[in-house]
Amino acid sequence: MSEMRNDIFSGRWVIVAQADALRPSDFHFKRFTRETGFCPFCETHEASTPPEIFTDRPPHLPPNGPGWTVRVVPNSLPRLRIEGDLGRRAEGFHDLMNGVGAHEIIVETPRHDQSLHELEIPAIAGVLQAYATRIADLHRDERIRYVLIFKNHGEDAGAHTITHSITQLLALPVTPRAIKNKLGIARAYYAAKERCIYCDVLQQEMREARRLVVENDSFVAFTPFASRFPFEISIFPRFHSSSFSRIDPQQRESLARILREVLRKLDHTLGSPPYNLSLQNSPRLRKREGYWDKIELDFHWHLEILPQIFPISGFEWASGFYYNPVPPEMAARCLAGG
Amino acid sequence: MSEMRNDIFSGRWVIVAQADALRPSDFHFKRFTRETGFCPFCETHEASTPPEIFTDRPPHLPPNGPGWTVRVVPNSLPRLRIEGDLGRRAEGFHDLMNGVGAHEIIVETPRHDQSLHELEIPAIAGVLQAYATRIADLHRDERIRYVLIFKNHGEDAGAHTITHSITQLLALPVTPRAIKNKLGIARAYYAAKERCIYCDVLQQEMREARRLVVENDSFVAFTPFASRFPFEISIFPRFHSSSFSRIDPQQRESLARILREVLRKLDHTLGSPPYNLSLQNSPRLRKREGYWDKIELDFHWHLEILPQIFPISGFEWASGFYYNPVPPEMAARCLAGG
Repeated sequence: MSEMRNDIFSGRWVIVAQADALRPSDFHFKRFTRETGFCPFCETHEASTPPEIFTDRPPHLPPNGPGWTVRVVPNSLPRLRIEGDLGRRAEGFHDLMNGVGAHEIIVETPRHDQSLHELEIPAIAGVLQAYATRIADLHRDERIRYVLIFKNHGEDAGAHTITHSITQLLALPVTPRAIKNKLGIARAYYAAKERCIYCDVLQQEMREARRLVVENDSFVAFTPFASRFPFEISIFPRFHSSSFSRIDPQQRESLARILREVLRKLDHTLGSPPYNLSLQNSPRLRKREGYWDKIELDFHWHLEILPQIFPISGFEWASGFYYNPVPPEMAARCLAGG
Repeated sequence: MSEMRNDIFSGRWVIVAQADALRPSDFHFKRFTRETGFCPFCETHEASTPPEIFTDRPPHLPPNGPGWTVRVVPNSLPRLRIEGDLGRRAEGFHDLMNGVGAHEIIVETPRHDQSLHELEIPAIAGVLQAYATRIADLHRDERIRYVLIFKNHGEDAGAHTITHSITQLLALPVTPRAIKNKLGIARAYYAAKERCIYCDVLQQEMREARRLVVENDSFVAFTPFASRFPFEISIFPRFHSSSFSRIDPQQRESLARILREVLRKLDHTLGSPPYNLSLQNSPRLRKREGYWDKIELDFHWHLEILPQIFPISGFEWASGFYYNPVPPEMAARCLAGG
């Protein structure tokens, strides 16, 4: 008998296999492999990208040249562009606006032969710092509602041509529905209890310990109760914070450590799986509006790691439901030992 | 410049490419190919499946033997099982229930060498009749809230081992969130206007004709304004109906004709693409509850055809947003001529 589990943060239902669960060796997926042709993101190829937006190169070196450890550049084929106004309008019943926003690439390392989990801790902390700096900067633009940070690792996670280790940033003129949905649920919970739903659930996860993968002084990694993907992992800060860009240097270093450990465990347990990583952060706070003010109490940023090792089918597309062939408790045991 | 388009039926935002749109020949996907090993769904292999639930075999022939054109059997590895009660319960903050429901396979043809769009019209009408009969039958079970009908065609659409032409049915103890979301929007619209949102939008689509693919006496196929997948197609009945199982023989035959034509155009335009098909139908109506009664006015069943030719990435998983590299107006032109 399978179980139908509800995700408290999103309301999503997931059918979770029990007796007929799959094990790590049962999955047949395309392992991450690295392309070796010319790469525009490698050190010394800086002229192959648009001019950099952010970098950590020592000040005596010229911009758009070598010597950096992390580098942020505009996407040369952007899905959204920073120029122009939104032009919100109707076409009969349909609503649309111009594709205004930003699409940036955070190059995590100058080297082509390293994935995120193979970097040193200070380098990963530097990538996290780049996320925080770019979010804070883009939040100054009144047209931007939400800055989405996500990573595609491996072809089946959507990185079909790029194998240099990068993160993408999309600054959007609307808050994505996945985030809006979470904000609404967190808000209703806070209104009822005057406590953060993420803080409360995290306490329960730590007490029960059935789905814990690893924890450190500031963060906890666990497999969510209603994981939609096999071996899905969430990383929650132990401290309450709605806004990732307020992360301090000690927290950043702790996050770099747990993120590297989690990605290494995932890599080891499954054997170079493709995965998506995303930051689930609060929208830009608009101080004049009471609703958004309260997000600082309601919401609690977190990272989601979604291995892409099992096919999504018409079932998921038609229903918004998921089928997960691996119980999160089993996934946590495999990962914690991995 | 791209456009951000809102889907009126779901509230979903999609970034739609404009100047940098891709053409059918720009896509590189795994074309549908047929496995030729032993297949449990072929005629004369009836003993390889659990005993049939529904078939259209002539009455003088014995059950579970040859002579049928469509055959419904339980899935031998069901994700949900019909036995037992729901056992809705909590584990601390988490909500769960037993995996109660049904998981059936609608075998669309006795022959291994035919896809749905290669069948004769009466055979496709027979498949649609099997959908309607199974939905009506399962709606008699008080534990079932929703009967989901979906089809995976090709490996990248989730049909990784089965290549015989089948449709899947999952009878669920909850209404899927994708459907609930649509019901809520349709309901609010009806409350404001006393008209069906699907009827209204269909009138506009027919008048503008920019996204029409094909139409007949009872149905219209078009590419939705905010299509999330390239070459996505919806088929709407021209007549208002919330419940697929009330389809009459003439409507069934019209639907078979338009469905075959649309799938053939898709196959021809893209070259054997993988796709998902789903029926977006109303939930089981519960007569005693005022809310559900009104669905007969609010909701309008339809088919969704989602080609799987472009990768879904961390962007979609993190946000619930989509990026579509093909404007639906261009997709409609390609398909209408295909």
